Amino acid sequence: MSAWVLPDHIADVLPSEARHIEELRRGLLDTARSYGYELVMPPLLEHLESLLTGTGEALDLQTFKLVDQLSGRSLGLRADTTQQVARIDAHLLNRQGVARLCYCGPVLHTRPDRPHATREPLQFGAEIYGHPGIEADIEAVLLSLECLRSAHAQEVSVDLADVRIVRSLLAGLPVGMHQLAQVHGALAAKDASELASLTRDFPSASREGLLALLQLYGDATVLNEAENLLKPFPGAREALSDLRAIAARMDGVRVTFDLADLRGYAYYSGARFAIYAQGASDALVRGGRYDEVGAVFGRNRPAAGFSLDVKQLVGVVSAPSLRAAIRAPWGDGGALSAAIATLRRQGETVVCVLPGHGSEVDEFHCDRELVLVDGNWVVKAI
Amino acid sequence: MSAWVLPDHIADVLPSEARHIEELRRGLLDTARSYGYELVMPPLLEHLESLLTGTGEALDLQTFKLVDQLSGRSLGLRADTTQQVARIDAHLLNRQGVARLCYCGPVLHTRPDRPHATREPLQFGAEIYGHPGIEADIEAVLLSLECLRSAHAQEVSVDLADVRIVRSLLAGLPVGMHQLAQVHGALAAKDASELASLTRDFPSASREGLLALLQLYGDATVLNEAENLLKPFPGAREALSDLRAIAARMDGVRVTFDLADLRGYAYYSGARFAIYAQGASDALVRGGRYDEVGAVFGRNRPAAGFSLDVKQLVGVVSAPSLRAAIRAPWGDGGALSAAIATLRRQGETVVCVLPGHGSEVDEFHCDRELVLVDGNWVVKAI
Repeated sequence: MSAWVLPDHIADVLPSEARHIEELRRGLLDTARSYGYELVMPPLLEHLESLLTGTGEALDLQTFKLVDQLSGRSLGLRADTTQQVARIDAHLLNRQGVARLCYCGPVLHTRPDRPHATREPLQFGAEIYGHPGIEADIEAVLLSLECLRSAHAQEVSVDLADVRIVRSLLAGLPVGMHQLAQVHGALAAKDASELASLTRDFPSASREGLLALLQLYGDATVLNEAENLLKPFPGAREALSDLRAIAARMDGVRVTFDLADLRGYAYYSGARFAIYAQGASDALVRGGRYDEVGAVFGRNRPAAGFSLDVKQLVGVVSAPSLRAAIRAPWGDGGALSAAIATLRRQGETVVCVLPGHGSEVDEFHCDRELVLVDGNWVVKAI
Repeated sequence: MSAWVLPDHIADVLPSEARHIEELRRGLLDTARSYGYELVMPPLLEHLESLLTGTGEALDLQTFKLVDQLSGRSLGLRADTTQQVARIDAHLLNRQGVARLCYCGPVLHTRPDRPHATREPLQFGAEIYGHPGIEADIEAVLLSLECLRSAHAQEVSVDLADVRIVRSLLAGLPVGMHQLAQVHGALAAKDASELASLTRDFPSASREGLLALLQLYGDATVLNEAENLLKPFPGAREALSDLRAIAARMDGVRVTFDLADLRGYAYYSGARFAIYAQGASDALVRGGRYDEVGAVFGRNRPAAGFSLDVKQLVGVVSAPSLRAAIRAPWGDGGALSAAIATLRRQGETVVCVLPGHGSEVDEFHCDRELVLVDGNWVVKAI
């Protein structure tokens, strides 16, 4: 095999897409910063138990593992950054009050998430720690919408769910791990006959509630139906009230509900959201509340947040046009060097043409050139 | 061991340093772009033979290895990006003329490079392919100096060397790999007696030349001495003339020469430079010419460039002061939301105080607040 063939689902990012990714990255980080989110940079490599304790089997299977020559211990390449940020909140910042944190860096997956997904997403995310109230959930959704706006995503819509609904319907029932996974699977597949069969020995309120969930997706009328159908379950009622409060803050965005939805990592503990946009076959943003995420680090703080893959985002938003460059001759005259330096300081790209390469073009379209006119270097259109 | 203890030489980057790294990163990429360097993003993971063929043992030992579950093949986590960019130039862009490329991303090392170095440097670099002339070497040095200027590095000095000098002194001699490594070691250690012993059977011109190299370090007078001492060696004469041409373009920067210096990866083929600055115990930038770097990909183009570790750089340059933020109350009034959105669009950080957290402070120092005065939201000093 040739030395330049890359592994499956691993790719180089070439200039025009790389520039767009870099611009998106800056826009996302600047948007988070404008909301008061502080940037952190957790490492790519950690001890496996830090990365994986309490996060569930899905993340474990997605994590590349290797051995540290310095210690002989097992390390993992992060497949998700949320757990790392929880560790930072718990141990390094250790604040009593609210901490707003954001990050943007690569993660690696042993297998692609979706059929055409990369195994090296560029994960951007933001997390708010220390506030149990619905305001943190709302801020997480509003910030993620603002982030997509900064990226010029079109026809954005939000899908809301809450893991507390299914949990409250199952609370107190003697359901084993295996059966639980089957119930979750039937809910995810909206498989009514399978769900009916799995729940045949459940108390009728739970059973009817679970079966009703399969129909409870769509616009805000779903919440009214659910409030009637799920009256016996206080956890579900609280969740529905929170979803209503979150939806109320989303002006001008299409909001749908899917009360049976349980997808994503195991650490979610409350309201969850997924955000879709034109051109994206899967959700661009996933987020919600995950109050238990810091427990393994000894500090079980309330937490809400979201993440997205900048490499997925770049595929669905249109690239800004490239600002054209200026071509300059190669030389070491003081006046020429000074003229070039001034233009570069003004934000221009000035490409010095190396001797013998005058007729070449590169990705920077040059629409002007620096020429000597009456002893002065001036910029002229080509 | 606690779940939050990180592996040795692996660290989280916390908010104030992370913000500074992000600012440096943007400054470096913008500087490279102003010179016409196009951004590329090679992957973190590649097949081992792409990463390591022709790069020498040092890079092999620095590279973390793991197995790809999808293919069963051995993968490496990049320990250096130069080889990847050579692959991109050779196969993906495949231009006939000049290609200027830059990158910025993490690399991973099995062992730290220096006693207190991180095993996860953030490598920034720029490469110019396709031009064999000295102009490419000069542009690489000038761009790296401009990059350090953008980072506000102080008391910058450049150390120049050229691998062709030692190579031309050894050319045609029957020296085995082992003896060659010993000679290089003695040169690096400036160990005259060891070098005298190793070269005792060499022709006298080579032997005297090698021993003379040990003294050939210091300011530009070194070049005059070397031109006399190394007259019999055409390769050395060419190298000295190139070094003189490079040094002539560096106004206002202290330049020293070390003609016995051979440090760094095996791929260098000509002039090399190392750049130092106030506060840095080791070189911040290493670069030079490496014409053979693309050979393994079937396209042996001329190449020159440099790289630096942004995490090393952030430790020696002073951080810009943080722009203070604005505190705003939590609420959903349309006028309040609009006032906050306007301030954020203007580049301000506006922190909404969540209910019950009014007395907290975070890393963003708030020196102003948004208050309602006569029915209008206005910014007032705190």
